[in-house]
Amino acid sequence: GFAKVDHHRELRQGYPEVIYCAGKTPEQVQSIVEAMISRGSNIIGTRADETMFNVVKEICDKAIYHKSCKMITIENHKITLTNSYIAVVTGGTSDIPVAEEAAITAEILGNKVERVYDVGVAGIHRLFDKLDIITGAKVVIAVAGMEGALASVLGGLVSKPVLAVPTSVGYGANFGGLAALLAMLNSCASGTAVVNIDNGFGAGYMASIINQL
Amino acid sequence: GFAKVDHHRELRQGYPEVIYCAGKTPEQVQSIVEAMISRGSNIIGTRADETMFNVVKEICDKAIYHKSCKMITIENHKITLTNSYIAVVTGGTSDIPVAEEAAITAEILGNKVERVYDVGVAGIHRLFDKLDIITGAKVVIAVAGMEGALASVLGGLVSKPVLAVPTSVGYGANFGGLAALLAMLNSCASGTAVVNIDNGFGAGYMASIINQL
Amino acid sequence: GFAKVDHHRELRQGYPEVIYCAGKTPEQVQSIVEAMISRGSNIIGTRADETMFNVVKEICDKAIYHKSCKMITIENHKITLTNSYIAVVTGGTSDIPVAEEAAITAEILGNKVERVYDVGVAGIHRLFDKLDIITGAKVVIAVAGMEGALASVLGGLVSKPVLAVPTSVGYGANFGGLAALLAMLNSCASGTAVVNIDNGFGAGYMASIINQL
Amino acid sequence: GFAKVDHHRELRQGYPEVIYCAGKTPEQVQSIVEAMISRGSNIIGTRADETMFNVVKEICDKAIYHKSCKMITIENHKITLTNSYIAVVTGGTSDIPVAEEAAITAEILGNKVERVYDVGVAGIHRLFDKLDIITGAKVVIAVAGMEGALASVLGGLVSKPVLAVPTSVGYGANFGGLAALLAMLNSCASGTAVVNIDNGFGAGYMASIINQL
Amino acid sequence: GFAKVDHHRELRQGYPEVIYCAGKTPEQVQSIVEAMISRGSNIIGTRADETMFNVVKEICDKAIYHKSCKMITIENHKITLTNSYIAVVTGGTSDIPVAEEAAITAEILGNKVERVYDVGVAGIHRLFDKLDIITGAKVVIAVAGMEGALASVLGGLVSKPVLAVPTSVGYGANFGGLAALLAMLNSCASGTAVVNIDNGFGAGYMASIINQL
Amino acid sequence: GFAKVDHHRELRQGYPEVIYCAGKTPEQVQSIVEAMISRGSNIIGTRADETMFNVVKEICDKAIYHKSCKMITIENHKITLTNSYIAVVTGGTSDIPVAEEAAITAEILGNKVERVYDVGVAGIHRLFDKLDIITGAKVVIAVAGMEGALASVLGGLVSKPVLAVPTSVGYGANFGGLAALLAMLNSCASGTAVVNIDNGFGAGYMASIINQL
Amino acid sequence: GFAKVDHHRELRQGYPEVIYCAGKTPEQVQSIVEAMISRGSNIIGTRADETMFNVVKEICDKAIYHKSCKMITIENHKITLTNSYIAVVTGGTSDIPVAEEAAITAEILGNKVERVYDVGVAGIHRLFDKLDIITGAKVVIAVAGMEGALASVLGGLVSKPVLAVPTSVGYGANFGGLAALLAMLNSCASGTAVVNIDNGFGAGYMASIINQL
Amino acid sequence: GFAKVDHHRELRQGYPEVIYCAGKTPEQVQSIVEAMISRGSNIIGTRADETMFNVVKEICDKAIYHKSCKMITIENHKITLTNSYIAVVTGGTSDIPVAEEAAITAEILGNKVERVYDVGVAGIHRLFDKLDIITGAKVVIAVAGMEGALASVLGGLVSKPVLAVPTSVGYGANFGGLAALLAMLNSCASGTAVVNIDNGFGAGYMASIINQL
Ligand SMILES: Nc1ncnc2c1ncn2[C@@H]1O[C@H](COP(=O)(O)O)[C@@H](O)[C@H]1O
Ligand SMILES: Nc1ncnc2c1ncn2[C@@H]1O[C@H](COP(=O)(O)O)[C@@H](O)[C@H]1O
Ligand SMILES: Nc1ncnc2c1ncn2[C@@H]1O[C@H](COP(=O)(O)O)[C@@H](O)[C@H]1O
Ligand SMILES: Nc1ncnc2c1ncn2[C@@H]1O[C@H](COP(=O)(O)O)[C@@H](O)[C@H]1O
Ligand SMILES: [Mg+2]
Ligand SMILES: [Mg+2]
Ligand SMILES: [Mg+2]
Ligand SMILES: [Mg+2]
Ligand SMILES: [Mg+2]
Ligand SMILES: [Mg+2]
Ligand SMILES: [Mg+2]
Ligand SMILES: [Mg+2]
Repeated sequence: GFAKVDHHRELRQGYPEVIYCAGKTPEQVQSIVEAMISRGSNIIGTRADETMFNVVKEICDKAIYHKSCKMITIENHKITLTNSYIAVVTGGTSDIPVAEEAAITAEILGNKVERVYDVGVAGIHRLFDKLDIITGAKVVIAVAGMEGALASVLGGLVSKPVLAVPTSVGYGANFGGLAALLAMLNSCASGTAVVNIDNGFGAGYMASIINQL
Repeated sequence: GFAKVDHHRELRQGYPEVIYCAGKTPEQVQSIVEAMISRGSNIIGTRADETMFNVVKEICDKAIYHKSCKMITIENHKITLTNSYIAVVTGGTSDIPVAEEAAITAEILGNKVERVYDVGVAGIHRLFDKLDIITGAKVVIAVAGMEGALASVLGGLVSKPVLAVPTSVGYGANFGGLAALLAMLNSCASGTAVVNIDNGFGAGYMASIINQL
Repeated sequence: GFAKVDHHRELRQGYPEVIYCAGKTPEQVQSIVEAMISRGSNIIGTRADETMFNVVKEICDKAIYHKSCKMITIENHKITLTNSYIAVVTGGTSDIPVAEEAAITAEILGNKVERVYDVGVAGIHRLFDKLDIITGAKVVIAVAGMEGALASVLGGLVSKPVLAVPTSVGYGANFGGLAALLAMLNSCASGTAVVNIDNGFGAGYMASIINQL
Repeated sequence: GFAKVDHHRELRQGYPEVIYCAGKTPEQVQSIVEAMISRGSNIIGTRADETMFNVVKEICDKAIYHKSCKMITIENHKITLTNSYIAVVTGGTSDIPVAEEAAITAEILGNKVERVYDVGVAGIHRLFDKLDIITGAKVVIAVAGMEGALASVLGGLVSKPVLAVPTSVGYGANFGGLAALLAMLNSCASGTAVVNIDNGFGAGYMASIINQL
Repeated sequence: GFAKVDHHRELRQGYPEVIYCAGKTPEQVQSIVEAMISRGSNIIGTRADETMFNVVKEICDKAIYHKSCKMITIENHKITLTNSYIAVVTGGTSDIPVAEEAAITAEILGNKVERVYDVGVAGIHRLFDKLDIITGAKVVIAVAGMEGALASVLGGLVSKPVLAVPTSVGYGANFGGLAALLAMLNSCASGTAVVNIDNGFGAGYMASIINQL
Repeated sequence: GFAKVDHHRELRQGYPEVIYCAGKTPEQVQSIVEAMISRGSNIIGTRADETMFNVVKEICDKAIYHKSCKMITIENHKITLTNSYIAVVTGGTSDIPVAEEAAITAEILGNKVERVYDVGVAGIHRLFDKLDIITGAKVVIAVAGMEGALASVLGGLVSKPVLAVPTSVGYGANFGGLAALLAMLNSCASGTAVVNIDNGFGAGYMASIINQL
Repeated sequence: GFAKVDHHRELRQGYPEVIYCAGKTPEQVQSIVEAMISRGSNIIGTRADETMFNVVKEICDKAIYHKSCKMITIENHKITLTNSYIAVVTGGTSDIPVAEEAAITAEILGNKVERVYDVGVAGIHRLFDKLDIITGAKVVIAVAGMEGALASVLGGLVSKPVLAVPTSVGYGANFGGLAALLAMLNSCASGTAVVNIDNGFGAGYMASIINQL
Repeated sequence: GFAKVDHHRELRQGYPEVIYCAGKTPEQVQSIVEAMISRGSNIIGTRADETMFNVVKEICDKAIYHKSCKMITIENHKITLTNSYIAVVTGGTSDIPVAEEAAITAEILGNKVERVYDVGVAGIHRLFDKLDIITGAKVVIAVAGMEGALASVLGGLVSKPVLAVPTSVGYGANFGGLAALLAMLNSCASGTAVVNIDNGFGAGYMASIINQL
């Protein structure tokens, strides 16, 4: 067919291909899922709308739709969670959809996840209140829009790897997330690396690799 | 002559014109200073190199050169300092030249100034150690390069106006200070306003107006 | 719940947290308002649509919707206005929504406000006609799109702090407000500082702090 | 040779080709001048350094070097000036080199020129003092860096065509003249058109065409 | 009311204020038109939608809607056309709406206009076929999107002032008209000046001033 | 009429004008097609919606609509295909619409085309599986969004000309295809040239010229 | 050693690896040349300064330095030229260094080259004078800075593939060649593809592949 | 003194503060080193020039200068290396200085490092030759300029975390490393995160944290 599903990836990288649904037709999504199910893989579809979910649901009853972050997941074989955990932290309430994409990705890949939401630097005492949970994690994901300062503050406080996810939350001179992206790339705190704007999936996936090293 | 010094400004705004020396010849700087001295004004020249200072020194013995921030000042009449003070805070050591431009501007305009340098978010406990001095100020100037997170953190901690000065300190995706500028403009902490990249002078001047309201 | 409302802010900064409604669900907005009302705080919600207002109205009869600038306000305790006032000035008619966000923010925070609208530099005599009102203010907010020259002209005429708000009004090479933003940051008039594009709220809040110093 | 001098241009457009010296070797400049002299044309070379001038001087005694704006001119036949004049106005002293490029270009093309320098909007009364000279012109050239507000203010005050020249004067978020360029393109005053950053030559040439229509 | 119509402009600049309808409510447009009609001025409204036109039509029967370029015009007093004419030239068919905005603006301001459409450089012989009309004009307006080469080609062929209007026609790396804008600003042909992207009005207005000098 | 169809182009360049339908009215598209049909040319219309197709179908029964890439084609005279072929390769499934624009353009211009889709560098073995088809081509078109690495990898593997087409597939810091565009322009593999973002048509046309040299 | 010279490339692509000297030490350049000479390959080094050339000359007497374009070439085995030729065309004199990089690259790769320099659109008749040479070529390379209109004009006139090379010649809003790059990418003339700014080498290499298909 | 060295960091994060020497005076660097030596910490100084090294050498004999990457290191206490290793991979020879900054940072922090240089995608077989070393690493650092495709190719081949470092190697439309940065952020291969342009230090530090988890 039109798509060459990368079945080999599970061998090569331990995880099967993840479906980026944006820009595909529902039929294309359905047929890729079909090809992967026949192999018994667990399945992740990101940036999926409800129409896509419905056609997937038709061929696979176990499919679940995570509305807040527009993900489809299918748990074909049981997932055992790690003991160590990944902390997913957000600056504000509006960053939650991106954070959920990270958290659910990490969970389906077998990681324990702790969510610490709405603790941004405008009221930094909220962050200190939760510092125990954050410093207890093996990997920290920092999700923030606007000026993205959360990543630098966390990077300065914890000794674990911090994965920074800039979000497009904000307006005007945030230029669709560019402000947070540049801020995170220029973090003066060492031990931070950055993924694409709104790329919760990428952060969750990277965190999972590190957590399971 | 070539320049129309705005002598009227002292009446209109309480302070005389400030000389932006970059892009002028030493002769032009000298002749502008000459015209202003004859009025008895205190004088500020920013972005001046040593050649400019030397020709100014020739015609005015009181001229002082502030090497770290490339300013010329002339105190023609005695300056009385305010009781309330302006706190000038920097993220790192490399931001000091811009901070000094702000501090010296504020001082020659008659303000008491407290310097709190090298307390950026990579080691945030250093900031908390100095929080008393900062919260005691009537106006706070936050000078930071790289990701500029200092402004947001301060904005969330103090109840006084915070003037944020992005600096061009950094490299790569800081794009000459753009990263810090955008971060500061998108600060999620209220009570912050921003001046141009490396514009210590502008922050010092604005802080002075507010401090003397 | 999902949000950690920063109740501590009222103590720390004199004002409670302001709700940025964009990107939140109506339910989230409602539940944040609920948590804050129980403390008796006055409430400001920015960038709210009518659906959000309706669910807030359900739980709080005093809620008011300011259609022109998409704000929700709730006056839980009586506001006493300052004697000194903030002048909110716009270049054109199309800048009024942003100006109203600034003005209403300032008013609910207890400041007297004077509005001077549609006096941009294309017909500068209109500005001179109103100069008395403007120079009488303790703080001036200059709201302008397109080339944003209003801020520089005001900065050169008044001795009070000028807070410049670039708007996204315009098209083509205004790049969503970038033209006005850059112009305002590069203002050759001293005594000006800038907030984010279309950030009337931020200017109103900062002006309030300064007016009440 | 390497260059195909456009001798035909004098017929087609009334003026011969102008030599853009930047990026050429002194030998190339010399040999182009040589080819043009043999036709008796008046000659303009822009962005020329002193080495270029020296080799030109060797083959043509009448050559003049305008140091402030790095131009070479050769008056091979007598220039008669127009009665109407072009006003060249600058915001600051640092914009003078660009203004001189415009003024000298206009003069060698046979136009009377009036210079009105250092009258920018930071001290707008200086502009009003000179308004007679400016409104008396047939074409106005507005040269300004930083936020470029001068063009909008002039555009709102005069009924003649205003040619706006953004300069790279400034620093930080002026991004090499981009701030002034965007401001001038977005001018809310009608009757304004813009040339490239620092392109005094282009403005002088265009003004000359209009003045001699 | 909310708007300060600049009635004085007709005296100062020979033409009344032009209404930029984008971002205004239909009521605001109507009330501005009302204020201007009472003075007997001819009226131009740009970027108006049909709803705006309908409310204007209610109060003024003479109002005309130019659908292709979304303009409202009202001819309150008879317009006499100039003898000399303005040529409005486009690169492609898709540039016509912007060209019409220029042409109709010029016409209501009393200028004779010749339209030469769809003669872009992809088939340059089409341009040469029409060269007589173009070189016969007193002012040339060059309207082009994509790479905007038309302006440079015209600038090299005619001896009259060329006003270049970049359009947002195109996709991908045209970045909303930026490609054509930059190309036109960097034209190697002298005698060209540029207005904002899609700003047909500005070009028509400027051309009218020049044509009537 | 409004459009000057470039009939001469077939003589000059071997192919008739191609209709860029975006920004035209259905009537304009129809009337251009009409003028071209009368000459017996094969016709290509790009970026056409179904309404445009319907009005074209009314006047020409042979018209075909290619939904995936929004093209209209009319085969007025029989097309004989070349022996050598063009390989059209994509990184992912979401790049297929752009690839189809290239493939169909090439086919109607008389070229044999081989499609190799969804073989991007995330699973590079898929590319090696198809290397025979790719290296057998006379020209290769590499269509990819996101980071556009496909072009560089192909450029390093094949000895034939590679035409790179960046697509706008992706989000966040892909900035509408800019990431892939810049990557392709900076390819460290020689033998690559680039067309505009999403410009499948341009690549198909260029490939056709090369294939038929 | 530090570098892994890609000797395999000659087999795979018909040409050996080309040395990009910028950012390498003279010793590194020398040692790479040494490794390649031992295989008897012809050698191309781009962006080399004279120091690099001198150390290469030490180990290889046949090395030639092309000063105008900073290239080192070594002809280890005799080059036979093609019958068909590549035309290298420039807009101005200042574009010649980039054009020479293209021409010399093409020549050492065995292609006949015709140079047509300084025929840009400011004096388009110069281009028409040389049209015979240009249309006689099998591939055309169009090298232009400033607004880069040359590529579009050539693309509209010839039926052969046009490779466009934007140069960084110009100033201000050319942003280091961005203006010409965007213009060339958006060319409305079909049959054009683009290489990186100032990348004469890339164009010469690509042209060679096409010319020798 | 001027700097508040973050001695607490060693406790908090396991490593002491790293000195960013750019923008500091030699005296400042010396005095920071002095303060840190007295604590017995190992010391890293990045972006140091030889003058800085000389003054450091004066007070500490053990100081070593790594010329290729401009680093100063001081080994005050013995470093024991990890068993697992970090692979540092570069696309070309010109990327080596950035790679060395990463490698040396990792080594002084106690990690075994394997260097795999000059294996970029232009000759991808060189990468496959070294795949064993790369897949054997616990963390992979991918250093590449130009189009940065190396990171995506590695991300698709290995199952370990890939830290991507864009370099400023290249010219023209690489815009100082922006091209590689955007490409790496948009990598379609999962398991990749990005640091700032040329930030070898940041990648080495992050890799060390992960390697020692
Ligand atoms: N219109 C606005 N523009 C910028 N910041 C705002 C605005 N409205 C509220 N805020 C700030 O946004 C923060 C709330 O973010 P969140 O936690 O996502 O609700 C608060 O700290 C406010 O100070
Ligand atoms: N080359 C580098 N790139 C980015 N950050 C660095 C570099 N070298 C040191 N740093 C960080 O910069 C901070 C020091 O900034 P400063 O106070 O200005 O010396 C430290 O926290 C380091 O973690
Ligand atoms: N999809 C496309 N992308 C870029 N150029 C195109 C496309 N389709 C057609 N063209 C070119 O656009 C020109 C037509 O422009 P216009 O006169 O506005 O119809 C023709 O010369 C075509 O070569
Ligand atoms: N300072 C300048 N800015 C812009 N264009 C110029 C300038 N000086 C000369 N020119 C134009 O540059 C063209 C010459 O380019 P070239 O063939 O490279 O010498 C002429 O057509 C002039 O009209
Ligand atoms: Mg919150
Ligand atoms: Mg420090
Ligand atoms: Mg108005
Ligand atoms: Mg001045
Ligand atoms: Mg057409
Ligand atoms: Mg795929
Ligand atoms: Mg020339
Ligand atoms: Mg190499």
